[in-house]
Amino acid sequence: MAAAFAAIGGKWKLTLLYWLAHGECHFAGLRRRGTPIASKVLVEQLRELEADGLVERVVTGPVPARVIYRLTPYGTTLLPVVEEVRVWGEAHLRRTRSGAAPDSAMSCTDAVV
Amino acid sequence: MAAAFAAIGGKWKLTLLYWLAHGECHFAGLRRRGTPIASKVLVEQLRELEADGLVERVVTGPVPARVIYRLTPYGTTLLPVVEEVRVWGEAHLRRTRSGAAPDSAMSCTDAVV
Repeated sequence: MAAAFAAIGGKWKLTLLYWLAHGECHFAGLRRRGTPIASKVLVEQLRELEADGLVERVVTGPVPARVIYRLTPYGTTLLPVVEEVRVWGEAHLRRTRSGAAPDSAMSCTDAVV
Repeated sequence: MAAAFAAIGGKWKLTLLYWLAHGECHFAGLRRRGTPIASKVLVEQLRELEADGLVERVVTGPVPARVIYRLTPYGTTLLPVVEEVRVWGEAHLRRTRSGAAPDSAMSCTDAVV
C-alpha cells in the first residue's frame, strides 16, 4: 500500500494534481503558479506522475513546441482524493491563518499562492 | 492552497498518516514498516507533521525513553482524506500488479510492504 501512497505522495504531487484538476496547463503556467517549486523539481514530479499514468505530456505543435500537461483518464480517478484534500485544505488554511480566502475558479494563467 | 497541500504532500506523509491512523506507534515500529524510508527522512517527515499539529510525539517513560507517535485530534480530521487515498490506493495496486492483497488489520509491529 505504501507504493500507492508514494504515487501521489511526492512533495508537490497533490498540488500538481489539484492544479491540473482545473484543466490542462502548459509548463510555464505550472511554473508560474508554483513559485516555491524549483523547475527541476517540477519536472521530476511531473515525470513521476507521467510514469504512474496519472498525467500526460502533450506536444501541441511544431518546434518550438508548446507542451501541455493534463490529467489522464486514469488520473481523473484521483479527483475524489483531490476534492477531499481541498475540503480539508480550506479548513486547514482557516486554522493556520484565519481570513485566507479559499481558491475560487482558476485558469492556467492564474497565479496561485 | 498550495500550503495546505504541502502540509500533507511530503513524500512519505500520507503513508505515515495512514500507518498512524491504525494506532499510535513507536519510532522503531515506523522504521521497521518503512523499509525504503531512510531514518533521517522519517524523522524529518515526522517533525514536519508535528510542526503542522497533525502528529504528536509522546515520551512514555524514563530514560531510555520509549517514544510513541500518534495522530493529534487535529490529525484525525485527515482521516477522510486517508480513507479516500486508501480506496484509490487499493484500486491502483490492483491496476499496477494484479493480485496484490489489500492491507487488512495492522498493528504497530506489522511489517507493511
